[in-house]
Amino acid sequence: MQCGVVGASGYTGGELLRLLAGGGQARVVRVSANASAGKPVGAVHASLRGVYTLVFEEFGAERFDGLDCVFVALPSGEAMRVVPALSGRVGKIIDLGGDFRLADAAAYETYYGRRHTAPDLLGKAVYGLPELNRERIRTASFVANPGCYPTSALLGLLPALQENVIRPEGIVITAMSGVSGAGRSSSVELSFTEVNESIRAYKVGKHQHLPEIRSVLEGAAGVPVSLSFVPHLVPLTRGIFTTIHADLQRPVTTGDVLALYERRYAAEPFVRVRHDVPEIRAVAYTNFCDMTVLVEPSTQKLVILSVIDNLVKGAAGQALQNMNIMFGYPERHLLQ
Amino acid sequence: MQCGVVGASGYTGGELLRLLAGGGQARVVRVSANASAGKPVGAVHASLRGVYTLVFEEFGAERFDGLDCVFVALPSGEAMRVVPALSGRVGKIIDLGGDFRLADAAAYETYYGRRHTAPDLLGKAVYGLPELNRERIRTASFVANPGCYPTSALLGLLPALQENVIRPEGIVITAMSGVSGAGRSSSVELSFTEVNESIRAYKVGKHQHLPEIRSVLEGAAGVPVSLSFVPHLVPLTRGIFTTIHADLQRPVTTGDVLALYERRYAAEPFVRVRHDVPEIRAVAYTNFCDMTVLVEPSTQKLVILSVIDNLVKGAAGQALQNMNIMFGYPERHLLQ
Amino acid sequence: MQCGVVGASGYTGGELLRLLAGGGQARVVRVSANASAGKPVGAVHASLRGVYTLVFEEFGAERFDGLDCVFVALPSGEAMRVVPALSGRVGKIIDLGGDFRLADAAAYETYYGRRHTAPDLLGKAVYGLPELNRERIRTASFVANPGCYPTSALLGLLPALQENVIRPEGIVITAMSGVSGAGRSSSVELSFTEVNESIRAYKVGKHQHLPEIRSVLEGAAGVPVSLSFVPHLVPLTRGIFTTIHADLQRPVTTGDVLALYERRYAAEPFVRVRHDVPEIRAVAYTNFCDMTVLVEPSTQKLVILSVIDNLVKGAAGQALQNMNIMFGYPERHLLQ
Amino acid sequence: MQCGVVGASGYTGGELLRLLAGGGQARVVRVSANASAGKPVGAVHASLRGVYTLVFEEFGAERFDGLDCVFVALPSGEAMRVVPALSGRVGKIIDLGGDFRLADAAAYETYYGRRHTAPDLLGKAVYGLPELNRERIRTASFVANPGCYPTSALLGLLPALQENVIRPEGIVITAMSGVSGAGRSSSVELSFTEVNESIRAYKVGKHQHLPEIRSVLEGAAGVPVSLSFVPHLVPLTRGIFTTIHADLQRPVTTGDVLALYERRYAAEPFVRVRHDVPEIRAVAYTNFCDMTVLVEPSTQKLVILSVIDNLVKGAAGQALQNMNIMFGYPERHLLQ
Repeated sequence: MQCGVVGASGYTGGELLRLLAGGGQARVVRVSANASAGKPVGAVHASLRGVYTLVFEEFGAERFDGLDCVFVALPSGEAMRVVPALSGRVGKIIDLGGDFRLADAAAYETYYGRRHTAPDLLGKAVYGLPELNRERIRTASFVANPGCYPTSALLGLLPALQENVIRPEGIVITAMSGVSGAGRSSSVELSFTEVNESIRAYKVGKHQHLPEIRSVLEGAAGVPVSLSFVPHLVPLTRGIFTTIHADLQRPVTTGDVLALYERRYAAEPFVRVRHDVPEIRAVAYTNFCDMTVLVEPSTQKLVILSVIDNLVKGAAGQALQNMNIMFGYPERHLLQ
Repeated sequence: MQCGVVGASGYTGGELLRLLAGGGQARVVRVSANASAGKPVGAVHASLRGVYTLVFEEFGAERFDGLDCVFVALPSGEAMRVVPALSGRVGKIIDLGGDFRLADAAAYETYYGRRHTAPDLLGKAVYGLPELNRERIRTASFVANPGCYPTSALLGLLPALQENVIRPEGIVITAMSGVSGAGRSSSVELSFTEVNESIRAYKVGKHQHLPEIRSVLEGAAGVPVSLSFVPHLVPLTRGIFTTIHADLQRPVTTGDVLALYERRYAAEPFVRVRHDVPEIRAVAYTNFCDMTVLVEPSTQKLVILSVIDNLVKGAAGQALQNMNIMFGYPERHLLQ
Repeated sequence: MQCGVVGASGYTGGELLRLLAGGGQARVVRVSANASAGKPVGAVHASLRGVYTLVFEEFGAERFDGLDCVFVALPSGEAMRVVPALSGRVGKIIDLGGDFRLADAAAYETYYGRRHTAPDLLGKAVYGLPELNRERIRTASFVANPGCYPTSALLGLLPALQENVIRPEGIVITAMSGVSGAGRSSSVELSFTEVNESIRAYKVGKHQHLPEIRSVLEGAAGVPVSLSFVPHLVPLTRGIFTTIHADLQRPVTTGDVLALYERRYAAEPFVRVRHDVPEIRAVAYTNFCDMTVLVEPSTQKLVILSVIDNLVKGAAGQALQNMNIMFGYPERHLLQ
Repeated sequence: MQCGVVGASGYTGGELLRLLAGGGQARVVRVSANASAGKPVGAVHASLRGVYTLVFEEFGAERFDGLDCVFVALPSGEAMRVVPALSGRVGKIIDLGGDFRLADAAAYETYYGRRHTAPDLLGKAVYGLPELNRERIRTASFVANPGCYPTSALLGLLPALQENVIRPEGIVITAMSGVSGAGRSSSVELSFTEVNESIRAYKVGKHQHLPEIRSVLEGAAGVPVSLSFVPHLVPLTRGIFTTIHADLQRPVTTGDVLALYERRYAAEPFVRVRHDVPEIRAVAYTNFCDMTVLVEPSTQKLVILSVIDNLVKGAAGQALQNMNIMFGYPERHLLQ
């Protein structure tokens, strides 16, 4: 099986290449990265020197002709120009950016701050959260890989919301992310001295993952959902910790809800329901999402704690999990 | 003016000594620390070598006889044995631990996991949050210095709650703390390799600062308050970031609430209301609390973001601010 | 092929288990860890929950009877009691600790601070640095896996020393290590707040890796070697950066020495000679050693810079590389 | 006393402002920063909001007319345009950059990569290392504040070199610096994700502090000096750890050399000679330089370990120490 990666010079692209080098069935034969065209993979991703002999090329859809699977790891706003060009030329497309996760062009414009240039493709991608959409992913030719925050929040919320344990309005999502989530960047704000020994919230109420979370929840629950989402930048490289509060819909105990989550995820290869508090260390460099739930009697709220590695389950690992489903490999292929 | 510090070998005690070395009116003449008795201050706090020539002594109330002000910087559970012994022998006492912050012995036992051995002193200390209790602090002889999380949460919540902007039930406090808040420790859980590149929540719904926050809010607002409090340990040494969600009681705009906070804190030397997002870097090594507020129309919630340095405004700095008030110094004395 | 791991609850043991889970030919069927006996692997190594169903047992040599390969990942001082008991019962033994790296019992006592209790086994283990001893490792039944600092220093020094580019006396090795090298620990010195935002040297001139480096160099070069070794603890979890200065024996250029190193390591799967400065990021979570060399005309010194991941090439990864050599697998098996 | 700061928007400028806010005799009345002209100090240095009401102005020498002391905290290359313009207009000038530390225009061009535009001023500044040049600083009107690495290395080397304990050739300086030393930057190389969990050497043999260290040593010892200098970037914000190896000139013991250092620095307010290993934590946010020395009998080398906070003793704190000397204040004024 032959793969290509468009936009392979960023952190997500590098993580994809790292995982794909693991000796599985999929072979990367083509990588593009406009700003690094002409450079070998190892010149950009020093850890991959000697692992890949490929050279980055400038993007051209024809270069990817006939490949079985192409991963698009571009910043949002660029994939919407690349995906239409690839359509029909390649077997399957997995887009790791945000351009095709929302079905609604207006919401895209509001939260991403630009017009969508391929609005006819909106709603055409299957949202690549295997725990929600496995069967549709299996036959999809175009998958929109979920965002990092949404992966963590949705896996935490879906069982409780779909089983009417919690109310769909007033959900509070407070999330903390490592800095790799912001991509390779030269901004002062992301320099070591500004991030280290500090924490800051950002894009409060305006983050582009807010409508993604909301629309997936609404689709899954069939009711309108309102939620607050406050992401924070914390001084670590990888990982997301998501803490969620939601109002209980009916009286339940912590044990009830844990049992519900364990049933829901019993067959999932990458979700681990814990009876104690999860931590990022346990999922770093893995495709796992660890989580737990607690009922707070005094406030009648459900507290959900969910952690992932933003570059793996929140990006490249989940993309491979989707590839495995789309191509009939075992789901753990290349993911341990 | 002559001061003593009981339990001066921990991080809070060290920070007190650092600030008191700043050349002000207060002179430290006595330091006790049982496990370090006989060692000079600089052998325990290497940064203070050459700054202090004092030697730690074993605690004995008589050693502090006649001092103007004694700071008790012991772990919770020890102060309740020390404070009764000091009473009457010294001018004023400022306890930086948790033993005298709650008025209710039953709540103390529930959240601190031990019986209170000086229940008659409960409710006798003035809660040392200057922004709430300045006048009472001025004449107090015994002050219970607030906890780090409560300082950050209360300063964020009080204006909105007291002005009926938010509802008193269902308040959600999600807080992230640096590791110095846990004190000098030899546990595996606080070792570098377990904390670095990770985040974990802890004591969810059971943290001893939960009843402290709730009882102060109830006292200030005159109504029952219910709240959820989830603290997280993040890989930095100093600082607390607190993100609060509360339901609006009446329709307001972000501008309205910002104006309210600015009025409330206009004369406060250590509270800075910002129109953008606060960050820990801006308050590290200072006694400032930086904060902002935002109204979220879609959820009808108020989002409050509040940051402090847990060792300064959350502990030693606030203790000095209280000392300044109690002894008639300018409030910025020793605090820049 | 069936493997066992003795002392599998530490960081090195955990890293071994992580790598061995990668779907290769070797299967772990037995793990011991006295203090964690009875606990499943995932209760100690949270990242391995759901990956292993094995339960830690108390050590007993008979439990490992007949296994093809047993890894001993105990702290120094414990392996010398375990290895004699395993001998003859199992196929091959790879000891990752320091008990069998030195041939000299007196040196062991001096640097490790205890008598060796199995002195007859000293000198019996093949020193498991594949780039030096590959052929002897191939047929060995007992391998002493090199220390982390020695791996980094020796790979940097051997080509220049063996080719008489540098003088064997007065070599200066300054090394910086991440904290995982100290093992899972509950000491105050290794707590986050003491390590973060700090650097300290330790065991200057007394570190147990000093005689290991010296004796291997002397064995390889056939001349007495004198060297200074100053290790530093720096605030990161994984990785060693080693900077070496040695006096030139004869006039050479940087280009000459680079060419020499590239020839020496041309066929090595895990050594990458660079023309620019190496960095830990590029080798983290890999079995690579990256290095470069520079000639300083003004001092007539050779500067050697060498980096590894202390838990991989400096411990568990190199142990697997040795296993691969001993059992005839491709050297990259399980190591990507 | 009235002060001004040119280039006050960087980290060094910010640290100067922080220290000068400490309530001493010196008052900052003028701050310039071209790129931030028009912004209040607190908009650039968030920690100083409410501490200063000053507004950054564009630089113009006339704006500083008549001030008692002007600090120039510009990047190297800019001070050489500013200092000539200030000369004669202001009382005293302290330049914190590298433009006036070297007396030799050719060396400047080699190491700084540009021609010096004020070569007539080279050699006119007193090199502001109080422990070496206190008496000359006292009467100087123009001081070149030492670089951060040089401060740490020189304080460590001077006693041994001047007392002929060590040989002046072949000195090896290996130094590790926090990232604030690189200034506020928007480069990818200094972004959090590239620096965190990594170490890298840089400018090996080419760093501009190499000729500074060498020329000061040569001036102080009166003999030619040759040295190797390898700086490393490590993941912390503040602090420099410098490890030095030098060949002994004559047989001495560790005790002899410690005694020599203690005598030499007995009256120094900011040098602390330790009998154990220094660490950055103990000097962070202080103007101290902590150090120790060890004789290694096996290599006949002296090992010197020296630590400072690069922003304080390595920059702003030392500048204030120089100001204190120049203006007759106690040396600890504003520095504790």
